[in-house]
Amino acid sequence: MRVSVPLDTSWRLFNHGPVTLVTAAADGAENVMAAAWVTPMDFDPPRFTVVLATGSRTRELAEASGELVLQVPTRDQLHLIDGVGSCSGRDTDKWAAFGIEKLREPGVQAPLVGGCSAWMACRVLAEPRLAQDFDLFLVQGFAAWADERVYDGSRRRADVPEGLRSVHHVSGGTYVLEGGVISVRPGAATGA
Amino acid sequence: MRVSVPLDTSWRLFNHGPVTLVTAAADGAENVMAAAWVTPMDFDPPRFTVVLATGSRTRELAEASGELVLQVPTRDQLHLIDGVGSCSGRDTDKWAAFGIEKLREPGVQAPLVGGCSAWMACRVLAEPRLAQDFDLFLVQGFAAWADERVYDGSRRRADVPEGLRSVHHVSGGTYVLEGGVISVRPGAATGA
Repeated sequence: MRVSVPLDTSWRLFNHGPVTLVTAAADGAENVMAAAWVTPMDFDPPRFTVVLATGSRTRELAEASGELVLQVPTRDQLHLIDGVGSCSGRDTDKWAAFGIEKLREPGVQAPLVGGCSAWMACRVLAEPRLAQDFDLFLVQGFAAWADERVYDGSRRRADVPEGLRSVHHVSGGTYVLEGGVISVRPGAATGA
Repeated sequence: MRVSVPLDTSWRLFNHGPVTLVTAAADGAENVMAAAWVTPMDFDPPRFTVVLATGSRTRELAEASGELVLQVPTRDQLHLIDGVGSCSGRDTDKWAAFGIEKLREPGVQAPLVGGCSAWMACRVLAEPRLAQDFDLFLVQGFAAWADERVYDGSRRRADVPEGLRSVHHVSGGTYVLEGGVISVRPGAATGA
């Protein structure tokens, strides 16, 4: 059910502001974290701003490898999201602790988190001052995938099953849930 | 019903990834646009990444004044959001065209859009290379307000009336609606 998505419209997968999971791998180590501060900043090639706190293990691995994977987790994964966002990969094997399935894609260093609705493999752009001053990373997607039950290509479906809907982080353990999808203009659901 | 919010927790007002409205004013001109690519990047002082397309009128006014106001519009304003995001202030008086109420705050150059649920007055940080290369602006909040029906201080209420809920832009005229609010950890709704 996970299918490749054309890169030029793949920004849409992340456009509605969900909380994300970020994975990174380097030198045999792999970690996953939750990140609310992840947003598109360009269409084609797709680029994103990503905030990764100083000292976080995932940031270290992303800096060492020059890559990370962004993913949109689902409502069914709410406890996983909150869990990996509330402990550190320094002292916890999050993969084992939360029973996370690792998916592999050729040419992508980090594992993809199984059960998510969208995935974007990214290279980290060289912006050391932004990382140092603001914990801000600019990344560029080079491959994207989506669960067909949630997306028709890169278009979010109007009838996403409740368990596969996105969640949006408010603060602490509190999240806004995705309600329905609405189109304001005739034909907008199929428009760009 | 619009009340001032302490700045140190005001990042929460925008944390769940809603579409935003951006206002800016300079030299007697005022404009408003819709922006999906607006995200917190720091807590205290609150800082945000904001993408403003090259050539947009609101960007010109923000660059000229060094200020802008971010706001979280509501489901009741869906047609306003889509409308101001689909025309230019160069040839349209958006305020008149969409019947937008302007609110004034002392010390803030741009008007606030009436009927929104949260507002953040920001100064633009001097990052000319990011603007030129990526249309990316880094801004720092200096005053914040929220509608008490939607936020208890800076905490999003669990029982936001449907018409005041946020909307999240997918693409074109398509939006994800805010569903309910859920807390994963006991006491999380009142936690940080």
